[in-house]
Amino acid sequence: MPFSERSLLDWLRARAPGGPHVVVGIGHDAAVVRAPGGDGLVLKSDQTIEEVHFARGEAPPGLVGRKALARVLSDLGAIGARPAAFLCSAALPDDLDEPSARALFDGLLALAAQCGACLVGGDLARSPRGIALDVAALGFLEGRAPMLRSGARVGDALVVTGPLGGSRAGHHLRFEPRWREGIALAASGRVHAAIDLSDGLARDLHEVARASGVGARIETAALPRRELPGGGRATVHQALHDGEDYELLLAVDPAEVDALAALPALAAIELVRIGATVAPGEGVVRIDERGSASPLPPGGFEHRFGA
Amino acid sequence: MPFSERSLLDWLRARAPGGPHVVVGIGHDAAVVRAPGGDGLVLKSDQTIEEVHFARGEAPPGLVGRKALARVLSDLGAIGARPAAFLCSAALPDDLDEPSARALFDGLLALAAQCGACLVGGDLARSPRGIALDVAALGFLEGRAPMLRSGARVGDALVVTGPLGGSRAGHHLRFEPRWREGIALAASGRVHAAIDLSDGLARDLHEVARASGVGARIETAALPRRELPGGGRATVHQALHDGEDYELLLAVDPAEVDALAALPALAAIELVRIGATVAPGEGVVRIDERGSASPLPPGGFEHRFGA
Repeated sequence: MPFSERSLLDWLRARAPGGPHVVVGIGHDAAVVRAPGGDGLVLKSDQTIEEVHFARGEAPPGLVGRKALARVLSDLGAIGARPAAFLCSAALPDDLDEPSARALFDGLLALAAQCGACLVGGDLARSPRGIALDVAALGFLEGRAPMLRSGARVGDALVVTGPLGGSRAGHHLRFEPRWREGIALAASGRVHAAIDLSDGLARDLHEVARASGVGARIETAALPRRELPGGGRATVHQALHDGEDYELLLAVDPAEVDALAALPALAAIELVRIGATVAPGEGVVRIDERGSASPLPPGGFEHRFGA
Repeated sequence: MPFSERSLLDWLRARAPGGPHVVVGIGHDAAVVRAPGGDGLVLKSDQTIEEVHFARGEAPPGLVGRKALARVLSDLGAIGARPAAFLCSAALPDDLDEPSARALFDGLLALAAQCGACLVGGDLARSPRGIALDVAALGFLEGRAPMLRSGARVGDALVVTGPLGGSRAGHHLRFEPRWREGIALAASGRVHAAIDLSDGLARDLHEVARASGVGARIETAALPRRELPGGGRATVHQALHDGEDYELLLAVDPAEVDALAALPALAAIELVRIGATVAPGEGVVRIDERGSASPLPPGGFEHRFGA
């Protein structure tokens, strides 16, 4: 029987008990744990698997290693944690030579140096097929409250940190994870909810709506659409449903958007308003250019397992 | 060109810079990171991969999940950290049904409950072939100094926490990771060096000797050899070279062995003296029953990559 990632995740969330030091468990971009007498610690792991997240011929090994770390830095950004240390577990197949393995780690270490996080360990093993990397990161909240998916309020502006759609044309290997921006946004105390866009705007927006108990409206004309390498821009459908954007989606008081956009750490990006949260009864809808509303299904990317 | 895990690890260790909060980096059973104003945090990840660490038919899914967590708890034990929280990244193949996936996580969660560690997150993805799990654990040192591979002194007694060899006959799926014992041993302050035996006694002993700058002698007649499910015991060769024992090897002052053995947390196990550390020039040797010495090569299990 095929089954969905969502089904297994919901079961796991109900099954995994909390504990005295668990502040935020399963169901957000990253977990928050409190050390005895210490600050909030953020933990998150992400896999980067050949044939699933990249193709060998498509990407030099350095970009694969870079992506493996960048994915988890994006999650740390969504919650507002400073990257501190990480583990890399690598399963390497017999058809990978040592120079390629080193190039892979060099790509990862170069990005690590940029964000101040240290590779402190991990595990090497043989893979029966293809490269599989899992990066587990530790971040520090440094006194900031974590940004979660669950804090959006009715009437919030919905804002994204960059253009969407068409990531598979190359962006998914080269994106800049928004950890700097995430730290500044969390430090501002003005963000009600945040999520990193990895499974498509529509699906991730449904996550925020569900976790926060709100509805949402997206103005399709307002969507920033990514310029594609071959020319032209991503379509509205791509901007709504493609995965791997690795931008942040934020819910904030409309009166605060300009103040957030003026944060020095956000100087390199443009905050774009793409809609608003509404009463939960309204569901999640898209407003087209003529002003007519229609339901916006999650669509996008969901892992399904089983034959 | 084939290449060894050791070669890639040595390169990585030289390549990965430390950082202000890194206390122990690559090259020990687990890493130690210091949180701002906080206690020592221990991080370690371990992979459990179908066709590499288990066969689907050999083990019900619950034992596979249990093993995935137990492997990393063994590492935490070697350094003396209390298990606190962990992430599980799972790559699941299309031929795994949802009940099996749930059974896998149930096995993992049952062991987690026993050790007080909480599953706080992770990542689910499709696997192109076979089940692949990576568990990343966070442990707390609670003021204890970490036990490392590098502290053995010439003249130390070498001690193991249980019988060795023949793990693949079933022990590797059912072992009790020594995290409780590790906490008590670290708290005693009497252990000079520790390592968890995962790659075979000889290979792991070479690691301790190399990291500590000492030689070592193993008395083969003193080796505790595991009782095998089919009757009989593991051979001396198996006790020296089989992997996946998941017992601790300790280097301690000979005068302290009895005091350590009397620790309440060690009541369920027997500490067995199997040899001693010697001057580095003597290398790593085995003394057979007639008292004659011969070199003990690392042998045992080393991952090799490349066709």
